Amino acid sequence: MNPPPAEIGASVADIDTPALVVDLAALDRNIAKMASAASAARVRLRPHAKTHKCPAIALRQIAHGAIGQCVQKVGEAEALVHGGVKDVLVSNEIVGERKLRRLAALASEATVALCFDAAEQVDQASRIAKDFGVEIGGLVEIDVGAERCGVAPGAEARALARRIADAPGLRFRGLQAYHGRAQHMATYQERAQAIASAVDAVRETLDALRADGLACDIVGGAGTGTFALEAASGVYNELQAGSYIFMDTEYARIGAREGGRYTEFEHSLFVLASVMSVPAADRAVVDAGLKSYSAEKGFPWIRDGEDMEVVGVSDEHGKVRIGPKAARPRLGDRLWLIPGHCDPTVNLHDWYVGVRNDRVEALWPITARGASV
Amino acid sequence: MNPPPAEIGASVADIDTPALVVDLAALDRNIAKMASAASAARVRLRPHAKTHKCPAIALRQIAHGAIGQCVQKVGEAEALVHGGVKDVLVSNEIVGERKLRRLAALASEATVALCFDAAEQVDQASRIAKDFGVEIGGLVEIDVGAERCGVAPGAEARALARRIADAPGLRFRGLQAYHGRAQHMATYQERAQAIASAVDAVRETLDALRADGLACDIVGGAGTGTFALEAASGVYNELQAGSYIFMDTEYARIGAREGGRYTEFEHSLFVLASVMSVPAADRAVVDAGLKSYSAEKGFPWIRDGEDMEVVGVSDEHGKVRIGPKAARPRLGDRLWLIPGHCDPTVNLHDWYVGVRNDRVEALWPITARGASV
Repeated sequence: MNPPPAEIGASVADIDTPALVVDLAALDRNIAKMASAASAARVRLRPHAKTHKCPAIALRQIAHGAIGQCVQKVGEAEALVHGGVKDVLVSNEIVGERKLRRLAALASEATVALCFDAAEQVDQASRIAKDFGVEIGGLVEIDVGAERCGVAPGAEARALARRIADAPGLRFRGLQAYHGRAQHMATYQERAQAIASAVDAVRETLDALRADGLACDIVGGAGTGTFALEAASGVYNELQAGSYIFMDTEYARIGAREGGRYTEFEHSLFVLASVMSVPAADRAVVDAGLKSYSAEKGFPWIRDGEDMEVVGVSDEHGKVRIGPKAARPRLGDRLWLIPGHCDPTVNLHDWYVGVRNDRVEALWPITARGASV
Repeated sequence: MNPPPAEIGASVADIDTPALVVDLAALDRNIAKMASAASAARVRLRPHAKTHKCPAIALRQIAHGAIGQCVQKVGEAEALVHGGVKDVLVSNEIVGERKLRRLAALASEATVALCFDAAEQVDQASRIAKDFGVEIGGLVEIDVGAERCGVAPGAEARALARRIADAPGLRFRGLQAYHGRAQHMATYQERAQAIASAVDAVRETLDALRADGLACDIVGGAGTGTFALEAASGVYNELQAGSYIFMDTEYARIGAREGGRYTEFEHSLFVLASVMSVPAADRAVVDAGLKSYSAEKGFPWIRDGEDMEVVGVSDEHGKVRIGPKAARPRLGDRLWLIPGHCDPTVNLHDWYVGVRNDRVEALWPITARGASV
């Protein structure tokens, strides 16, 4: 782990760069806003920790009413449970005896569940849970249109649910019905259609399960792009949104297409960068590149950067076009970059530098950084 | 730092996934091949550590004749010097008093140099070197066509070189003349033209410096895409290639366009992934996504994956199309993914798992992982 790029109490001007900076006031407003939305819709909120990878933020969400956390990986579950989170859902399939043993070990410290889309996985998890003398929750993942993992809704899901319910060491908890592809569809209309179809698939499956006497404690799904639709569906009871706490340009572009850039939530996550070269009147270079933000969803935006634009990125450089209306930057000037995709950007850093009123107020270790195993 | 995903002596089948795996025999052949090329051209080799970020690999290159290492960041320089490397060139500008102090502290343990493209930076580095009682080498970076950092060749470079030569605490070492943009130009012809023009710029600058009595110990540049051109130029005397030790699909695509996929060097770097879901006959999902490889240069390729192709990636998933000629994968099957871009992929991992003859032979910590400050 690298040393933190700032000290608590220092001014923002003293943060070394590149740094992953969180605007704490904006973060808190985003957390409160999603908590209110879930509460108003009478659904539970189980935010996704793959976004933040940080127990300090998980506990902040839980203090605002979240019932626990989602993760994708056993390593993330370990980081959260060791950090005090008591209820963790691995919203993903886990393959491999070693990983399942680690998950079983966690189940004696916290409420733990994972997803299944294959019978042999149920049997293996059952054997290991029994061996550890613990109970692990099991959800059936159904493919509601994401075309990634998951069994078909209806009869196939019912058979797998029955297998989980009958397996020693496992407890059938419900359905995982996340529509990943829908989150970034360009228009509200497309997203609404995708989630309407997901809701049909869930309803069909719930009916099939009910006919077999199987009740679902959890019907989980939803992300930042669609959560209001699942919340209003009458069938989903847990929202798994993650990105809403930070936002990124990918989500902001969707907002922009629908008539306003920052419609639902605020940008609270930035990569703070310094100007390290001003080789021409129309060009500056900053000290943050592909190792400080992910770029597969496009180059970062510059906050308040009138007539300035990131036009090229390399490993440790960002090339900035300085337009005629912009003041020419000087060496050492700071730019606040808004990442294209928040989750993989966070995964590059060891520390959040939390700032409020121009001062460093928090240094939170990103303890699940790189925990992909 | 996350625990290593394997044990020394284990078989490859026992490596947990995702894991960053290095084929040690291929790595050694790549290292030896570049060393021979440099030696045959009578130029020095100073490989770029931004690729590997690992003292163990740096020392392997040095054992094969490399004279030291290049880095982009002070944190990388610290990791290498602490790992036993005695000669480090920061092939980049460094802005900020705190970073320059850290570099000055290293200069009492190793030969250290950095690049300049602004007079005020020379003055600041000089003041700090004097304060530490050390000597730091200084190179003038000239823009030879990369259009990133660097002063103009000729008179502007000469003025900055003179300022370095006259600055207490600094020693003028030479020119940084890397043409980054040329590395991935599509055809040999384009690359040859770009480097011919870079060579002209270097020659013009060397003439201007000579007229001022300034000699260049180092004329550095070149990457894996162009090194043979700089090596044969008669003006460059240090090659700074990095990616040749691992290769990636971005370099392989260039090779493919020129009539053979693996022309110069072999792929030695892989992200080992496991099949975690086989939801349909034509689809499998692996447990490695954007947090295990960078994708801004495209999706990873599958080694030996006949009629299989990665067609979608998300944070922790890779979606694989299974064509009619491929055997349908089973849960737990391993796929060897070739990353799109090696440098930012390495930066996601804490460990190299070095394998030879189907056995884990090395676990090398990537000590400069995330060292972007």
